[in-house]
Parts: sequence; structure tokens; C-alpha cells
Amino acid sequence: MVNTRERLKGKESEAMLKYISKPALTPESIRLIFTDMIEVDIAHAIMLGKTGIIDEDKAKAIVKGLIKLKEAGADSFHADTSRGDIHYNIEVVLIQELGMDIGGRMHTARSRNDLKGTCSKMRIRRLCLNNMKQLLEFRKTVIELSKEHAETVMPAFTHSQPAQPITFGHYMSAMAKALERDFERLHAAYKHINTCPLGAGAAAGIGFPIDRQYTSDLLGFDSLAEHSIDAIAARDYLVEYLAALANLLTLVSRIAQDLYTWNSFEFGFIEVADALAGTSSIMPQKKNPLTLEHAKSQAAKVYGELMAVLGCLKGSPYTHTSDVSTTDKGSFADNAAKAAEATMALFGETLETLIVNTDRMLNDTRINYCSATELADALTLNHNLAFREAHQIVGSLITTAIERNILADQITPELVAEASQRITGKKVTMTKDELLEALDPAKCVKTKTQIGSPAPSEVRRMLESCEKTLSQDQAICEDISNRLDAAAARLAAEASQYMVK
Amino acid sequence: MVNTRERLKGKESEAMLKYISKPALTPESIRLIFTDMIEVDIAHAIMLGKTGIIDEDKAKAIVKGLIKLKEAGADSFHADTSRGDIHYNIEVVLIQELGMDIGGRMHTARSRNDLKGTCSKMRIRRLCLNNMKQLLEFRKTVIELSKEHAETVMPAFTHSQPAQPITFGHYMSAMAKALERDFERLHAAYKHINTCPLGAGAAAGIGFPIDRQYTSDLLGFDSLAEHSIDAIAARDYLVEYLAALANLLTLVSRIAQDLYTWNSFEFGFIEVADALAGTSSIMPQKKNPLTLEHAKSQAAKVYGELMAVLGCLKGSPYTHTSDVSTTDKGSFADNAAKAAEATMALFGETLETLIVNTDRMLNDTRINYCSATELADALTLNHNLAFREAHQIVGSLITTAIERNILADQITPELVAEASQRITGKKVTMTKDELLEALDPAKCVKTKTQIGSPAPSEVRRMLESCEKTLSQDQAICEDISNRLDAAAARLAAEASQYMVK
Amino acid sequence: MVNTRERLKGKESEAMLKYISKPALTPESIRLIFTDMIEVDIAHAIMLGKTGIIDEDKAKAIVKGLIKLKEAGADSFHADTSRGDIHYNIEVVLIQELGMDIGGRMHTARSRNDLKGTCSKMRIRRLCLNNMKQLLEFRKTVIELSKEHAETVMPAFTHSQPAQPITFGHYMSAMAKALERDFERLHAAYKHINTCPLGAGAAAGIGFPIDRQYTSDLLGFDSLAEHSIDAIAARDYLVEYLAALANLLTLVSRIAQDLYTWNSFEFGFIEVADALAGTSSIMPQKKNPLTLEHAKSQAAKVYGELMAVLGCLKGSPYTHTSDVSTTDKGSFADNAAKAAEATMALFGETLETLIVNTDRMLNDTRINYCSATELADALTLNHNLAFREAHQIVGSLITTAIERNILADQITPELVAEASQRITGKKVTMTKDELLEALDPAKCVKTKTQIGSPAPSEVRRMLESCEKTLSQDQAICEDISNRLDAAAARLAAEASQYMVK
Amino acid sequence: MVNTRERLKGKESEAMLKYISKPALTPESIRLIFTDMIEVDIAHAIMLGKTGIIDEDKAKAIVKGLIKLKEAGADSFHADTSRGDIHYNIEVVLIQELGMDIGGRMHTARSRNDLKGTCSKMRIRRLCLNNMKQLLEFRKTVIELSKEHAETVMPAFTHSQPAQPITFGHYMSAMAKALERDFERLHAAYKHINTCPLGAGAAAGIGFPIDRQYTSDLLGFDSLAEHSIDAIAARDYLVEYLAALANLLTLVSRIAQDLYTWNSFEFGFIEVADALAGTSSIMPQKKNPLTLEHAKSQAAKVYGELMAVLGCLKGSPYTHTSDVSTTDKGSFADNAAKAAEATMALFGETLETLIVNTDRMLNDTRINYCSATELADALTLNHNLAFREAHQIVGSLITTAIERNILADQITPELVAEASQRITGKKVTMTKDELLEALDPAKCVKTKTQIGSPAPSEVRRMLESCEKTLSQDQAICEDISNRLDAAAARLAAEASQYMVK
Repeated sequence: MVNTRERLKGKESEAMLKYISKPALTPESIRLIFTDMIEVDIAHAIMLGKTGIIDEDKAKAIVKGLIKLKEAGADSFHADTSRGDIHYNIEVVLIQELGMDIGGRMHTARSRNDLKGTCSKMRIRRLCLNNMKQLLEFRKTVIELSKEHAETVMPAFTHSQPAQPITFGHYMSAMAKALERDFERLHAAYKHINTCPLGAGAAAGIGFPIDRQYTSDLLGFDSLAEHSIDAIAARDYLVEYLAALANLLTLVSRIAQDLYTWNSFEFGFIEVADALAGTSSIMPQKKNPLTLEHAKSQAAKVYGELMAVLGCLKGSPYTHTSDVSTTDKGSFADNAAKAAEATMALFGETLETLIVNTDRMLNDTRINYCSATELADALTLNHNLAFREAHQIVGSLITTAIERNILADQITPELVAEASQRITGKKVTMTKDELLEALDPAKCVKTKTQIGSPAPSEVRRMLESCEKTLSQDQAICEDISNRLDAAAARLAAEASQYMVK
Repeated sequence: MVNTRERLKGKESEAMLKYISKPALTPESIRLIFTDMIEVDIAHAIMLGKTGIIDEDKAKAIVKGLIKLKEAGADSFHADTSRGDIHYNIEVVLIQELGMDIGGRMHTARSRNDLKGTCSKMRIRRLCLNNMKQLLEFRKTVIELSKEHAETVMPAFTHSQPAQPITFGHYMSAMAKALERDFERLHAAYKHINTCPLGAGAAAGIGFPIDRQYTSDLLGFDSLAEHSIDAIAARDYLVEYLAALANLLTLVSRIAQDLYTWNSFEFGFIEVADALAGTSSIMPQKKNPLTLEHAKSQAAKVYGELMAVLGCLKGSPYTHTSDVSTTDKGSFADNAAKAAEATMALFGETLETLIVNTDRMLNDTRINYCSATELADALTLNHNLAFREAHQIVGSLITTAIERNILADQITPELVAEASQRITGKKVTMTKDELLEALDPAKCVKTKTQIGSPAPSEVRRMLESCEKTLSQDQAICEDISNRLDAAAARLAAEASQYMVK
Repeated sequence: MVNTRERLKGKESEAMLKYISKPALTPESIRLIFTDMIEVDIAHAIMLGKTGIIDEDKAKAIVKGLIKLKEAGADSFHADTSRGDIHYNIEVVLIQELGMDIGGRMHTARSRNDLKGTCSKMRIRRLCLNNMKQLLEFRKTVIELSKEHAETVMPAFTHSQPAQPITFGHYMSAMAKALERDFERLHAAYKHINTCPLGAGAAAGIGFPIDRQYTSDLLGFDSLAEHSIDAIAARDYLVEYLAALANLLTLVSRIAQDLYTWNSFEFGFIEVADALAGTSSIMPQKKNPLTLEHAKSQAAKVYGELMAVLGCLKGSPYTHTSDVSTTDKGSFADNAAKAAEATMALFGETLETLIVNTDRMLNDTRINYCSATELADALTLNHNLAFREAHQIVGSLITTAIERNILADQITPELVAEASQRITGKKVTMTKDELLEALDPAKCVKTKTQIGSPAPSEVRRMLESCEKTLSQDQAICEDISNRLDAAAARLAAEASQYMVK
Repeated sequence: MVNTRERLKGKESEAMLKYISKPALTPESIRLIFTDMIEVDIAHAIMLGKTGIIDEDKAKAIVKGLIKLKEAGADSFHADTSRGDIHYNIEVVLIQELGMDIGGRMHTARSRNDLKGTCSKMRIRRLCLNNMKQLLEFRKTVIELSKEHAETVMPAFTHSQPAQPITFGHYMSAMAKALERDFERLHAAYKHINTCPLGAGAAAGIGFPIDRQYTSDLLGFDSLAEHSIDAIAARDYLVEYLAALANLLTLVSRIAQDLYTWNSFEFGFIEVADALAGTSSIMPQKKNPLTLEHAKSQAAKVYGELMAVLGCLKGSPYTHTSDVSTTDKGSFADNAAKAAEATMALFGETLETLIVNTDRMLNDTRINYCSATELADALTLNHNLAFREAHQIVGSLITTAIERNILADQITPELVAEASQRITGKKVTMTKDELLEALDPAKCVKTKTQIGSPAPSEVRRMLESCEKTLSQDQAICEDISNRLDAAAARLAAEASQYMVK
């Protein structure tokens, strides 16, 4: 009865069916789009009736038919591959049930291009919003861990060498801060995702007197993707979304790498909880920090999706084509969203259950010479040396200490005197207490009270600010959720009222 | 006198000099950072004096010495490779001139890490701002071209096949719309770039009572990159910036591809101006649209820079390391910024000087069957057929026309009757005028008055909105420029006052 | 009874189950590895028995148990997620059936790392070999099409502008040539894939007197991946394989782009068969060349997989880690192989069924000035002009012709005389026949008999050479298949003999 | 006199000059191509004369002129930007000196496309060959280091956790093995690079009776890039080359990451030599392993170049276009080659001068439980336990040991008895000596004599094989160099003979 290939002779080739049509109509593929599409169909049909583009009675019949399908659900919808895609299948079912004169009017004043584009954006906004919500939880975990360890002294590293004393809370709160920007980027991407293409037609607009604002509102969009070509052709929102995820997962991969090193037998600073570790089939002693490795691999996965999307788009015509529309189908965005989801779940739990060996952290900080800068600072402050002179004295002192196997906590005033004599020709005399104070990592940390510095008070101040920002961002997510829920409720209400009227 | 390698024995190896130190100290590398670094040094020195961290007299002497260097300029600064980097070289010159007791105090309460990070952000914010400003011009060009051709009928293509009639102005205005989002993304990246790391130290903060807000303001930053580790380790702003450029150049590559096709002998829709074309050394007839190819290649270049930066960052410790800091040195961001600059310049000029063959566009639209949807719509509207039925009738009609070598402008009411009979069993009788009207591309376009559709009136409305947004964005750029200029003026004023006092 | 988490307290967390263990044990995941793993288990067990590492009776019982599992097949194997992975599940089933004293010995002298590495290579060599075999068919298709059109005159384009006359067979035979190198690269990758890691242990080798060569032979490997760390850590073969596919699909994407342009209404050179085209839900005239767009998108997909794998590997320790081992699990290689498979299937069929409009190709070649170089050559040969002079004369002539709306087939001797006068001050007098001959594209093509040039005779010569190479490459694939089959047969034979003995 | 833009009106635009023509004619750009181009010009001119395509006297004059230019050298060649590219500039100089009738004939029977393609391949084969030669040295360094440490016991890690005892020589020899494959891939790429496009013309072949084999031989190519379109359009050799470098640098990045971890204060296994380390401007104790970080960043750089090239090529027409030809110009390949060069130089020197702390390696191996598998093996071998049982016993034992703060070298027979009782219900009684032997890492290593395993004898055997392969590969490089030198000598000889004749 319905033939959408009237223009073409014969059937699709076997290869087309195998590689293109069938994969688009697996139960999983249908599940990915079915409900969104029915909702768009309903909103469109109500609009067609209300604007008088089609008879209201016919519009009502269509809405009724669609609601029946929606209630039956994606899994009980049987698609016929020869009909090419899910949209045709739904239309054909309606035509079979309601007749051509009714069912055949649903697709008036629109195209598959704006229809599917609208469905894609509904799916991707959901992915993005889920990432945003999970990121709120994730940030909370990071903040909690930071607060707990605001006084847990450890060395900062640069170039993976001991640098200066900080606290573990200071380190983790850096992540809390950075994650705020990741949220901002996801939110910015969300805004570009959540604009409605419906009414753009195939790309060239619509001649019928449709009401774009009405359908856009019913479907929960913030605004129209106004220009008909732009609405169909653009995928910048996808690149922006994937780039935001790439940035987020890059951050996690870096924190994961640090924890990975610190989780080693040799560092022994931290230990991943047993519930998140793996064992070995052969090596009985093994406890492998799998989630930290996982986090690193997922970042790479997202880079791949981002590169694939950019590759698809580059040099593609600014209109509808398969290479453009493939970018928002099942794989790229969904894979990236999934990678982010898995990473935040696994890495978040890793942080929540992390075992922190405060003694080993502190001991390492004491012996690994990382208070050397503080010693130079003390020489500058108490002995009126230029910083550069003090730096040279301490550099020379450390070299001597290493040669003589003297660890940092065994440095003596005599060594300071010897080094200062060597460098400046004058002996600097520190008292033992002065030296001990300069080298004591916990004291060093306490004096670092400048904005952003590791003093516990300052870390706590920053974390309070993080919590404030977090609660603002929670409000953003709630607001978005509420608006989507309200739209869904309104669509349902209008649909049921519409049928009754 | 000054030895920054006191901790190490012997000199750098030849390979280190060749591959690392020397490339960092070429005249070009120095030029890239010199002025920014001197400005940071000045701001830092004033702050050290004002806070009393060093004697005011010494601070003044340092500022004086720095201003002398700044006035002499990057090109007259001779760097000694054995001193490793530009910062040390400046410090050594000061020590040589002012003595260790003065010059040796400039680097108090800071590290190369926050110093260089600050310089990088000053350079990259300039790159980003330049891109933003050029984008304003570029958008203006696109808007102008769109306005000029709001009535120039051409076919829209989907899948590179004639789709429906639009105008060239409608097509180009899609780009104008899309570029608004590219500006938004660059602006968002700018905000994340323009935060000040100075005062973060090596990553572990600063113990001296510095005034971070003061130096940040003097250097034109919008706010602090507060957390000391985050300030040093983060490069998310760079990924965000490169991703914004990737998105922008992807868009340009796509428009370029369309123009590239339309510029062919066979399409003949447009022609690039002679001044932007290339010739052949062998084929005398050649006129090659080089700028369109250029645009496509530059997008790929930016993908490469983005991928390189992500690759450098992935799994790197969240702190200062060379693989992290290499990402904001001379190459990646600068290459990408340059690619965007060249693309906007060349592609912008291509659009400004574009020859549009309106006759060929219109003629093609008339014959290439792209009004078929409008014919189906007419059957729906005037003959009360369901859209799906009308669609099948016209599909069948076109197949027949092609078989009989009948182009679109030769379709007759008889053919419509024949096709409708074939599909529905009933003849639909259109008048000749009705048919001509349905198939006339200019008329089709005029009826497409819905939001975003190609009717000239609607295109003009959208372009007015584009102009409004453009002027808002111009105000944003001016405001940024003004703030940077004001900060630079304030820094200069404070420095000269400071020396006098 | 069997606890592989003896070292750890408690169970895996819910998140670990959801994101790591369960996905590894879906029916699909099991299907991907089950048969290979059982075969490796069998080969290993026979070897353990033959070398006396375990009692032969016990080895026989294990082999028997494994064959039973193999015969039952992957789909009837029920894995328990709490046991972590497929290997443990198989081992536990054996222990349950044969007792700890027998089943508990199967995993002697090996690790999951070498076991799974071996399975991965068996799967990936299959993917690679399938690509190679399909490529043979694909090359055949390309060669056939080239032969058929060795005399079908068309323009060559450079910069997408008409350049010089060639034939469609000449164009397609370029692809035939290029595909030879793609085969070489896949074959080279195959060799690096098909080396056996079994016996490498966890990475640190094996202390038991195993016989690596024996198991390697039984499993069809060409040689050992000798070094135990290299065997476990390396994934260069995967990068090599994906890069080979990226190269192949890049080529296809480029040919696809050309065909895509030529398939336009405006060019009309070719037409994709109906069976491979798509239609529109709204535009009844539409016939969309989907397979050409598909080919382009698949190249981008493979770039994504390649980048993801490089991203996973970069900076990962050279040993076994999850981020390394994730690269050869289900997704990256399989997705890329699938993309190549789909592309060769769809694009191959597109070529087989391609409609070539020889008239439009020829006509376009006649009028689009692409014989200009031949005209310059004629001036050089017959009128003793320097090539550069001739080039300038013809350049000037074409400019005039375009200004006067004179297409190439209407150029007259007078125009030549006029242009030569203008450029050199001397009139060159061509006869009408001489001019016609110079401009006749078919004649131009015939004279291009140099190696690699488009003369039909030369194209046929090249195609014969392509056929020769193709048959050599067919022999390579057959040889590989035969060796794999022989190994499989030997393994089956030794296993059944072993059980009997 | 010479106008190559006869077809076009007016001059190039300023933007074209700024962004396209000028960058192609900087002294550096000229240096990159000048000598190669003159050589191609000479070979072509001799061929034109010998084949009689142009008068021999004219050919001789051209050759003379070219040799003069070559002798003057690239730096004394002044290019005029308005002439567009280096080729035209050379041609114009010849015409100015020899007159149009002579100089104007040099470009007969060829195009810029085959000319520049030939020059590019000459440059890129040089880059590739340099990488190959340096790789030989690099492999030698790795082999030497491996030999030196064939008995230096250290732990193997998997998942960055102590796994089993190996030696540092065993670890490094894994790299030696892996590098063999990198050489193979570079060599394979070299073969695809070193085929000659000259004679392909603009892509459509040549009508004149040229002698392609002759010029190809004179220019040192191994064979022809036969098909004229393929010769001009293909860049697969570039993707292959960059992918080979990506693979190589990925390997180095991974080894670098391991050394980076082991170079930490906390591991203390190795120490980078002072000559390759960096210091800090603020932290006096710092010794930063810069070369290890450098190696990681360079891998990412190459990924970027690879991705950029793939991006340029994807969907570009299979012919000559600017986006295709930009891929083999100055940046992508040269940047990647340079990254590989710098990495091999810096990382190679790092290995040559590496300080290995054998005591700390051994001590860590003794205490970190990494002999647990050997203990399980001993239970299997000496106490007839199934491997899985033994594995569980040792797993349980280690858990107890950790809880009681017992390091591996303090494990007692009592603990073994306790654990076996707990797991199997039976006590296993080991003697003290038996236990010590099982846990002694040096003994463990010695027993691992299987192919590829860490026993010093086996490592030495593998290294001998590596040396054999290395000397074969050295012969390959010498052979290539010799052939290139012989061709250059022949070209010079034929040129000077030709002028004399």
C-alpha cells in the first residue's frame, strides 16, 4: 500500500539491507529512538490539527494511534526492514490502521531530516544532562575527600620529583576546582544541543503554516534551531559536547595517573579498596588498581569518538547527508557519554573508598628534600640573603647530602654553614630549631596561606566556595530537569485533552 | 656568578642544547614571550616592594632595570643558551647590572611555573581575541553576501542531489547563524584562558605575603586561577580553545566544499575571483579555486593540533611537567590560531569577491526536479490528497519524466494525471497554471515564510537578527580590548610612578 | 570451591560488575572469544601432558572436558559474572567436573595475560585475513570496471577543474593500482599479528619446561612472539593494522568523493544503481547515493578507532595493564574491521552496478577546455614554439573564448592566430583539421601512450599487470588460509588421538 | 616576459600573497626543495634532449644553466613572490638568461604536479632514511644496556604492581625486540615513498615520447609510481610513514613512562644523568628527568601530524588538489621526522648514561611479594598441589603477611603451613631452605630459561639474535645509501658529460 521507493526500481540490495537498513532496525536501535519519535509525532500531529493544516478529526485519530503505539512500547513494535527506517515503519502502521487518508497525512509539513534531527537532540540532551547530574555527585565526592584530608601532609611533585609539601586535601581540591569548568562546558554544550530543528523540513524550510514555537515548547526545547539549513546541517553542538567530555576525562585520566603511581608498593601513599581491585590468575599476591587504568583508557576512547565525528564532518556539504547524520546516531555520542558515565561511577567510587596511608605520605615528605624551597625561603627571610643566593646554597647543600646519604630529616646547621661558605664565602649560622622549623613539612604547609595555597585554612575556604558553586550547579540541573518534566507533562496533557475534544 | 644548576654536575649534554635549550631561545621564540615576561616581572616586582616582601628601593631598582630591557626590545636581547631559558637570562642580566643583592631578589615568592604559565595565558588570550575580532569581520562579510542574494534562487541539495528551491542568500545566512555559536565558544574559551596563575608558585603555593589580586589586575586578567595546583596543571582552556577553532574551521570547510562543487565548470553556479585563483604550469585553461581547498586543509590542521594536545595531556600527572607545559608553548595553539586567521582572511575575501552566476543557478533549479515536493504539497492542498499519496504520485511522475527525457520545466498536467491514475486509480486534473505555479522555484521560495525558511522576507528578518547579535558581540570584543588596554596603561603608569617615588 | 580473590576481602563493587565484569560476559562477548580460548586451552593441556609438567592422564581428562565444552558451543556456556572473566569460568567448570586435582592443573605454566593475548591475536588475524580476502574481490571489481571503460573518454580534474582528457577506465585503474599497496600493508600487519604470545606468562616468562613452539604450531601461528614482556605489552601490530585500514578507507573515501560529485544532476557522468540508492520521505524526486556517503563516514570511523588505540597506549607502561589490554578487546579492531567490510561490500557493489553516462562524459570533455594543454603541445610540436610561449598563447585564447561565450569545441584557427599575435607578436596559422585534432579528446587520449598514461593500450597493459599481482595476492591468501586450516585440523587430530591414547 | 597568469586578470590578492605565496618562498622553504628541484630539472632536461623532444643543444644549455644555479646554492637564489612558486622562479631565471626559445622549453612534457611530487618524495625518503639510520644507533644503545644488565634483578610489574622477578636487561631487551618491527615498518614505508612520479604530468599523463625509467634511475628511485593519477594523487606512503613513526614513538613513550616512575625518589631504581636533567628556579633540590617527559610529548605530536594528514586526505578528490599536496609540503612529515629524531637522540643518550641502582632494585624485589608465583609453583612441583590450590594458599598467605606487616623476605614455613591448612584443610610443610629458594628473586630468574623468559642465558641469546638482525638492517641502510649516492654520482656525471658533448 505504501511505497516509499516509488522513484526507484526494485528492492534494496542485500548489502544495503545487511549493512545499513538492518542495523538501523535492531531492537536496540529502535529502543534508542522510539519513544522520542512518537512524542515528536504526537506534538507534530496536534500542531497540524490546531493550525488547520490537516483536519482536526484526522489529527486526533493520528494522536490516538500514536499513543497506542507509545503505550505498547518500543519492544513490542515490530519493524519491517524493507521499509528502511523506523519513521516509515511507524507511518505505515498508522496508515494500515487508520487508512491512507488519515495516516498518510501525519508526515505533512515535515521531513525525516527535521524529525530525526529533533529525536537525536532529545536523546543527546538526555545523555548530556545525565553526565551533568553525575558530575554533581562526582564533585561532591571529590570535595568530601578533600575536606577529610585538608591536613594530611604529602609532597607535591613536579616532573614527578618531590617538589614542596602540600596536603592530600590540597591536591584533591585542585580537581574539585577544575571540575567546575567541566560542568560549565557541559552546560554550554547542553544549551547548543537543546534547540529544536522541527519545522526545518528537509533543510529548505516549510511552506505550510506550521507553528514551530508550539512544537518546540511541547518537546521541551529551550528555543528554536531557527535557520532551516543550519538546523539540519549543523553538528557543532556534538563536537562541543564531545570536546567537553574529552576535557573532563582528560582531567580524570591525569588524577588517575597520579593515584596510580601513589598506589604502587614503592610509594604506598594510597590503596584502592579491595572491592575495586582485580587479582591475577597466576600471581597470588596481586591487587590490581583496575579502575585507575580504566579511567585512562576511557579518555582515549572519547578522543576517538571526537576525532571520528570531526572526520565525518570535515568537508561534508552544509546540508543533510548520511555522513553528517551518522554522527548523531547511535554510536559516537552514546559511546562517549557511556565512557564518561563509567568513569565517573568507577573513579568516584574509588575515591569514596580510598585508603590513605597518611604515615607513609608524611614520612616520605620528611625525607625526600621537598622542604628545600622553604629552607631557601628561611635563609631569605631570616638571614637577608637574596633568593637566588639562598637557592644556590641549598642546591649545593642537597647535593652534598645525597652524596653522603643524608636524608632531609638529618640535615644539620653545620651542613648549611658549609654550603653557604662554599657558595658565598660566608658562613650562615642557623639554629637547630630554626632549621627544624624550616624543614618540617607540616609547618611549611601551615604557613602557605596565600590564595590557592595549601594551608588547611585556605583549602577549607576554597572547598566552601566549591560547595557554593556546586549547589548553584545543582539548581541548574534541577531547573533543566523540571523544565523537561513540565514539557513532557504538558505534551501528555495536551495529547489526552486533544483526543477527548 | 649565577648558577642555576648547583644541584647538578657538569653541563647540559649537546643533545639537550640542540633539541631543547636552543629552540627555546631562538630570536623567534624570544619574541613570542619577551614582552609579556617583562610585564609580569614588573608587576611582580612592584608587588614585592609594595607588600614589603623585599625592600622598596630594591624593587624600584628592579623595575627600572626591567623597563630598560623592555624598551630595548626583544630583538636586542641576547640570550645565552647555557642559561637554559629566557627567564634565567633576564634574571642574570639584572643581577649583572644591579648586583646579586638586588637582582637576585626578583624571583622571590614565585616560580618559573607560575611565571611562564602567566605569560602563556597572556599570549593565548591575544590569539583568541584576535580570532574573535576577525570573526566579527568574517560574519559581517557573510551577512552582506547573504543580504545581496536574498532573492537569488538556487536549489538546496541534500545528499548532493537537488532537493528543493531556496536562495543563495538563504544558504549563506545559515553560515551567518552558525558562526554566532562559534563566537560564543571562543568567548567562553577566552574566559577560561584569562585567569591569572601568578602566585601559584611551582604548584604548591607561596608562603610570602604576596598580593595576587593586585598583580592579576595589573596584567589584565579577569580573575585568579585560584588553586595553586590547578593554576599550574590545567590546560583545559587550551583544549576548549582548540576545540572551538576546530568547530569553526569545520563549518568553513563544509561551506567551502559546497562552493567548491558549485565552482565547477559543470555546475557553474559561482566563480572565485581571479585574484584568489591559481593557474597551472602546464594547463593553460586552468583557474583553480585554491582558497576553497585551503579552507578544507586548515580544518584538518587544527584537528591535528587538538589531538596532539589531548595526547600530551592524557595520563600526565596533574602538576607541572614538560609534556604538560609543552602544550602551551610556541606550536600548538599558535598553529591553530594561525590556521584560523589564514582561513578567515582567505575565505572571507573569497566571499567578498565571489562571482555569482544567478542565471545558471535559476536555470538549474528549474530543470532539476527540485520543486517536486512543492508539487506534492500542491496536490495535498488543492486536491485533498494525503501527503503520502501525493508523494507517491509525484515520485512515479518523476521516474516517467526521466525515462522520457522530460526535464522539470516540461512536465505537463497530462503527466500528473497519468501518474495519479497509476498510483491511486484516480486521475488528478491540474490546470496548466496551477502546475506552472507549483513548479516555479521563485514562487516556491516566496511561499516558504515559516521561521527559518527561505522566503526572502524571512531571510532578511534572520539577517537583521544576525546583525543585532553581531553588534552585541562587537561590544564584547571592544570591552575586552578596553580592559586589556586599561590594564596595560595602569601597569605602565604604576611602574613609572613607582620608579619616581 | 575455587576462589580467585583469595587475596582480596569481599566482593567486587556493584559499579565494577556493571561497567567491567558484566560487559565482558555478555553472550556476545563470550561468542567473540570462546572457541579460540578453548582451542588454546586444548593445545596448552596437550603440551602440559606431553612435556610431563602434569600427569598425562590428567591432561587427557582436561582435553576431554574441553572438547565437550567446545562441542556444546559458546551459546550454551553459562558464565557467572562473579567469577570475573571467561577464563575463570571455564576453569571452574572443569574443576567442578574433574575435581581440583585435575581441573586445577590446567592453568599451570601460563597466565591469563598470555592466554588472552593469544586469543586476541587469533581473532584479529581472522579480521585481518577477512579484510584481505574481501580486498581481493574488491580489486577484481575495480579492475573489471576499469577494463570495461578503457575507452570511455572523460575529463581528468585537478583542483576540481577540468584538466585534460583521460578515460574512466584510466581513472578507475588508478584505484586498482593503489589498492595493491593496501593489500601489502594488510599483509605486513598480518605477519606482525600472527605471532604467538603463549608461554610469555604474565610478562615475566615461565619456569616450567613448556614447549612454546609446539603450542604455537598447533594454533596456526607463523612464529613466536618471543620475548615475554614484548609478547604481552606490544600492540604495535594493532596500530599497524588500523593504520592500514585507515589508509585503505581513505583511498575509498576519495574515490567516493569523486563519484559523488560526478553522480550529481549537474555533472551527470554516472548514476548509482537504484538498489543502492535511498529516497526521501518528503521529496519525491530523490535518489540519494547513500553508499558513497557511507564510504566517507567509515574512513572517519577508522580514524577514531586508530586515535583511541594510540591514546590508550601512549605513556602506558610496557607491560600488561588494563588500558593496554582494552585495545585488543571487542571494540576498536572489530569496529574498524567492520567498517572496512561494510565499505568494501557497499562500495564494491556500487561499482559493479554503476551506470556510466558515456555521452555526458564525452560531451563535457569536448566543451570544457580540458584539451588546452594538447593544443599547447601541438603548437610546440608543429609550430616550434617553446612550451612556455605556447602555454601563454592558449591561456590568452581561453580567456577570450570564455568572455565571448565560445565553448572549446567552437574554437577556430582565427582565435589561435589572434591570441598568438597578442602574445608573441606573430600570427600562428593552424589548419582547421590540425586544430580539431588537437582539441579532440578521444585523439588526445590515444596519443598518451607513455607509461601510466591514459591511452587505452597503456591502461590495458597496467590492468594486466594488476591482474597478475592480484593472482599472486590470491595465492598469498590461500596459503594463509591453508596453513590456518591445517593447524586447526592438526589440533583436532592431536586432541582426539590424545584422548584415545 | 613570462606570464603564468595569462588566464587570469590582475594580480593575486594581498591575502593570497601573505598566507600562500610568501610562506612558500621564504629562504627556509626554498632550502627545503631547491636542490632536489634543480636535480629533477637536470635529469628532465637531459632526458628531453636525449629523446629528441627538444633540441639537444637547447637541452645542454638548460642543463648548464641549472648547474650554475645549483652551484650558487639555495641561499643565493632570490625568488620573486609574485611569480608564485619556486618552480616558476627557476624557469623565469633560465628564460631570462637563455631566452624563451631555450629556457621556455624546460617545462615541456611535464607539470608542476609531477615535478613537485618528485621533489617531495626525494625529501621524504631522506627523512625516512635518516630515521632508519638513527634507529640503528638507537637499537645498538638499547642492546648494550640490556647486555650490561642481564643479571640485574628487578621486579616485573603488571598493572603497576609488583608481579614477578625479572632483570633490567630482560626488560630493556623487550624494547630491543620491539624496535626491530619499527625498523621493518619504516623500511616498508621507504619502499612506498621511493617510487618516481615524474612523467605523470598533471595527473593525466604525457603525450611526448619521454623516458620515465631513465629519469627515475637518475634520481635514485627504486621504481616508477607508474599510474599517472595514482602518482599524483596518492599520499598513502605518507600515512604509512607517519603511522610507522607513531608506532615507534608510542613504544618509546611507554618505556619512558616506566623509567619515569622508576626514576622517582620513592622507587629510586634508576637516575637520569645530570647532563640530561633540568633544575628548578625555585626548588633547589630539584633534578627533573626532562628527556623522559619529552619522549612522551613527542609521541603525541606525531599523532597530531598523522591525524592532520588523514584529515586533509579524507574525502579529497583522487587527483591533485591543494589540500592533498599540502600534506607533503614542509610541515607534517618534517615535524614528525624531527620529533622522532629528537626523541631518539635524547632518549638514546638518556639510556647510554643511565644510572642504575641495582641494590634498590634487588631489595625491592626481595620484599615486595613478587616471588609469590614462584612459591605457588614450588608448591605445585614439590608438594603435588594443583596450581589453582597452590595459588589460593599463597594468596591467603600474602594477605596474612600484609596484615601482620611481614615483608616477603620474612615469610616463614609456619606461615605457609597456616595458609595451606586454612585453604585445603591440610598442612604443607616446607623446609626453610626450600622456602628461601622459592622466594629468592635471583634464583627465580635463573630458572626462567624458556624462550623469551628472563634467565640471563636466554636474555643473552635473544640479544645475540637482536644483534644479528641489527647487522642485517645496517646492511639494508647501507645498500639504500649506496644506491642513492650512486644515482647522484651518475646524475652529476651524465650532466657534466652532457654539457661537454
